[in-house]
Amino acid sequence: MSDTVSTTTWQPLVADKQRRQQASIPKAWLINVPDTRVAPDITKVPDTCGILTSKEVEITNANVEILLPRLASGSWTAVEVTTAFYKRAIIAHQLTNCLTEIFVEKALARATELDDHLKATGKVVGPLHGLPISLKDQVNIEGVESCMGYVSWLGVHAQKNAVLVDILLAQGAVPLVKTNIPQTLMWAETFNHVFGRGEGALVALKGSAIGVGSDIGGSIRIPSALCGVYGLRPSCGRIPYAGCVNSMEGQDSAPSVLGPMSNSIAGLKLFTKAVIDQQPWLKDPLVVRKRWSQEEHDLVEHGYGKSLCFAILWNDGLVTPHPPILRGLAMVKDALVSAGHQVIDWQPPVKHGEICETIRAIWDAGAQADYASATAPTGEPIIATMSPDQNESALKASFRPSGDAKATVNDLWQTQRRRRELREAYLAHWQQTINVTGTGRPVDAIISPVAPFTAPPHGKYTNANYTMVWNAMDYSAIVVPVCKADPTIDIKKPLDRFLSEQDKENYDLYVPEVFSNGPVSVQIVGRTLEEEAVIAMGEIVDDALKAAKVKVPAKM
Amino acid sequence: MSDTVSTTTWQPLVADKQRRQQASIPKAWLINVPDTRVAPDITKVPDTCGILTSKEVEITNANVEILLPRLASGSWTAVEVTTAFYKRAIIAHQLTNCLTEIFVEKALARATELDDHLKATGKVVGPLHGLPISLKDQVNIEGVESCMGYVSWLGVHAQKNAVLVDILLAQGAVPLVKTNIPQTLMWAETFNHVFGRGEGALVALKGSAIGVGSDIGGSIRIPSALCGVYGLRPSCGRIPYAGCVNSMEGQDSAPSVLGPMSNSIAGLKLFTKAVIDQQPWLKDPLVVRKRWSQEEHDLVEHGYGKSLCFAILWNDGLVTPHPPILRGLAMVKDALVSAGHQVIDWQPPVKHGEICETIRAIWDAGAQADYASATAPTGEPIIATMSPDQNESALKASFRPSGDAKATVNDLWQTQRRRRELREAYLAHWQQTINVTGTGRPVDAIISPVAPFTAPPHGKYTNANYTMVWNAMDYSAIVVPVCKADPTIDIKKPLDRFLSEQDKENYDLYVPEVFSNGPVSVQIVGRTLEEEAVIAMGEIVDDALKAAKVKVPAKM
Repeated sequence: MSDTVSTTTWQPLVADKQRRQQASIPKAWLINVPDTRVAPDITKVPDTCGILTSKEVEITNANVEILLPRLASGSWTAVEVTTAFYKRAIIAHQLTNCLTEIFVEKALARATELDDHLKATGKVVGPLHGLPISLKDQVNIEGVESCMGYVSWLGVHAQKNAVLVDILLAQGAVPLVKTNIPQTLMWAETFNHVFGRGEGALVALKGSAIGVGSDIGGSIRIPSALCGVYGLRPSCGRIPYAGCVNSMEGQDSAPSVLGPMSNSIAGLKLFTKAVIDQQPWLKDPLVVRKRWSQEEHDLVEHGYGKSLCFAILWNDGLVTPHPPILRGLAMVKDALVSAGHQVIDWQPPVKHGEICETIRAIWDAGAQADYASATAPTGEPIIATMSPDQNESALKASFRPSGDAKATVNDLWQTQRRRRELREAYLAHWQQTINVTGTGRPVDAIISPVAPFTAPPHGKYTNANYTMVWNAMDYSAIVVPVCKADPTIDIKKPLDRFLSEQDKENYDLYVPEVFSNGPVSVQIVGRTLEEEAVIAMGEIVDDALKAAKVKVPAKM
Repeated sequence: MSDTVSTTTWQPLVADKQRRQQASIPKAWLINVPDTRVAPDITKVPDTCGILTSKEVEITNANVEILLPRLASGSWTAVEVTTAFYKRAIIAHQLTNCLTEIFVEKALARATELDDHLKATGKVVGPLHGLPISLKDQVNIEGVESCMGYVSWLGVHAQKNAVLVDILLAQGAVPLVKTNIPQTLMWAETFNHVFGRGEGALVALKGSAIGVGSDIGGSIRIPSALCGVYGLRPSCGRIPYAGCVNSMEGQDSAPSVLGPMSNSIAGLKLFTKAVIDQQPWLKDPLVVRKRWSQEEHDLVEHGYGKSLCFAILWNDGLVTPHPPILRGLAMVKDALVSAGHQVIDWQPPVKHGEICETIRAIWDAGAQADYASATAPTGEPIIATMSPDQNESALKASFRPSGDAKATVNDLWQTQRRRRELREAYLAHWQQTINVTGTGRPVDAIISPVAPFTAPPHGKYTNANYTMVWNAMDYSAIVVPVCKADPTIDIKKPLDRFLSEQDKENYDLYVPEVFSNGPVSVQIVGRTLEEEAVIAMGEIVDDALKAAKVKVPAKM
């Protein structure tokens, strides 16, 4: 499509937006951007570039569980913390192009308000008092643009806050920046015509205490895993989505969900509990009327978290993960067994590929008309690949629907029915594992790869089945970082039998040096609407890994 | 369509099924059916026809809260109770054609099993021990047909129980009979080619302690209201639907829900709590992981049920209810005010007609293909009217989609998006009533007509908006009987201005003598997934009405 589009309409709008974005960055916070071809690891730049004071380095390196008590006591003011994170967010942006909307004054005004309140009353506004939170571009903030990467949606400033923003404000948070997204939202990588290519690395670079993402096929878990941070994909209906912009609006069978990313599980828990405690079902009709359950977080239904039985999905029968991923799974297994838990193998009752096809077909049934209507006003091209060399073969990558389907509504219903049957089969199978765990309970949680690879080169995110399958099931899933790829350990072994053509492609993709130092993460997957328990089980896995690292540091 | 269909395929199948059904009725339970043209009120027939012993009359006239303790103590055995209700169900069937599947031996075998268990262990199997429960034809029972009124589905015996049946068995219930349905399920009256015309009067005639219905546009609430019994339409995802047969399978945006009908609110509560206590989310992936909340049933969020503020929907802006319905609403208001509650007027924030159009359009988008595929195998005609004289104008009646729409998937999504926006607007409006109630809370519940008329002649159920609107909102709603239409009080007044053409039609429909003695009921409407509170508020309304009747018996 991109060949036939006139260049008169949309490019000037992009240029204007990019100028406005650049103008929103304080000059004093500009850095000399290093050449990543020479020094690809940019994770040390924020601490060393000289923009941050030593106190700001300390603040931005603190996790949520450190930040909140200091903010609450006033030992760090909200203005100090907001300033520190804003500076670091701007540095991260210069390194990775991760931001869309930048509004320093607005954030500092909010922080000042919080400081004044604390001084005047001696009380915090809420449990997130003074915490800087970044928001995916979709999440409307009154007076701020939400073009979502569509040129055609530029220039519209939100009339009111998304419900989530109102709730975060009520709980004391500081909305910090908005973050970059892929055009249509249906890619595992970030590229659009407005903001260009950017990466979800803001939280990993500690430019935000908590980042809010949305996940329809993996878009919270994939950036979390590939950047080595924690992330939660809640089930549908737990975190309010009302008042955001979106693609495929009205597609309510397999929708995306909002959820947090953070540098600690405590960050995920604090965010999730703070949002649910605001009774979001009174503000968004699609939110489930279900309070935060301390009982579920205490794992009462999981034997109080003693002697759990986890089951590892070593591969999905279609694509075998790369050696670093398999090593990560083995590390999790060893750590959990050392911590007194049981770990068995997970055998899916149905092919994950078939499950993923159902939600892809649901999206596909109406996606093309949706993309067309969003891009038509300015003639901007619909992006067909994430590859920088515009390699068309990448179109099949990730969870993006092909848009070729000519489904009728009744066809859609048949697909939705099939998906429900698969969910029923999966649930029945999970329940039946009570016969093999020996705990008197079914498997407590599944441990799954997030992807069959760690961070791949641009355009090479060729398989999102490991995340999509849990969207199709609507299971809650938390991403926990495990280790980093190491070419000296993660050897490529010769292999001549493959599970599928995709398996061979994935095998061929693995070049140990290319993936060197890529974060390896796993998903801890629980039942639908089991956020409290999944967070608690994530903590158990994380603690077990940390304990194991103390014992065998060489493995890391 | 019916004109062009060959009569060779489907009629013999119907005749065969009707023979088999007749053969399943024990000869000793046949009665002399009275001529309803002479004696239209058949409610006394079961007690007086001589088939039931005096003990059986006593048993079947007992409500659930009487039955269960006697069953639990063994003072009435499950076999006695099952036999009594079975006989009465068969009497009711001869009067109203209300049954589809009759399986006396199976039910008595189950009852015997329960009696044996109680004798052997001294313990009940569960909280519903020995309780006879009738099930809408959709609800699969292993080994029993579920043709759902489609000739084409005859002869298929269910391979396994619906999840709900497994749960009811685990809680000690006795599945008694299956009940009649309209073809396609999308009518407010019951007529199909297999079982003919029949009425949802089984519970009202006390042929079942609890009846399970399904409600996509009112199909639990309409028969409850028109027969003068209690009924609960839960929100989606509270009562498991898995394992039932259905129409429009895979239409998961505005689906039907299962719920109970009973002669007391205690019956509704016992059923609902017993089902939820079995953790149905572990058996049906579409059930919300939410336990029965005693706190919500105690109305903690509603000021513990003291000085509630109800709001009455006197009319929906499109059709003014008939005089008996308006009198019923006024009686509820007076009773609640006498009981110390506040009652204000409900002003909808958007037109209910527009809301109803959205879910009708959702169904419409794929319904015709669904009906066609279900009827094609045998060539049975798709029913176009509920009128006995085949008056085609009745096609527009009730919530049946016209099936004329040529919607694309993207069109469907736009409708679904519009519905979501209407739900958001309605919720925001409800929250804002905090400014007018004076209780510090928004309106606690809406009191709404169930229909703009009480039981109309066949083919005249011309408006289901008063029930459909709450399906569109997915609000929980309980039906409470109030009084009966009385031509001496419910005078037809002259009127020459109408809200709409439908309003005029409805006005013209009212002939006081035709509706004489028709039950008048109201809906108490709560929030989405607020079943516990809605049941409790239903009790408050019911108690207030009973207290008022003691004071002013003349009004009844």
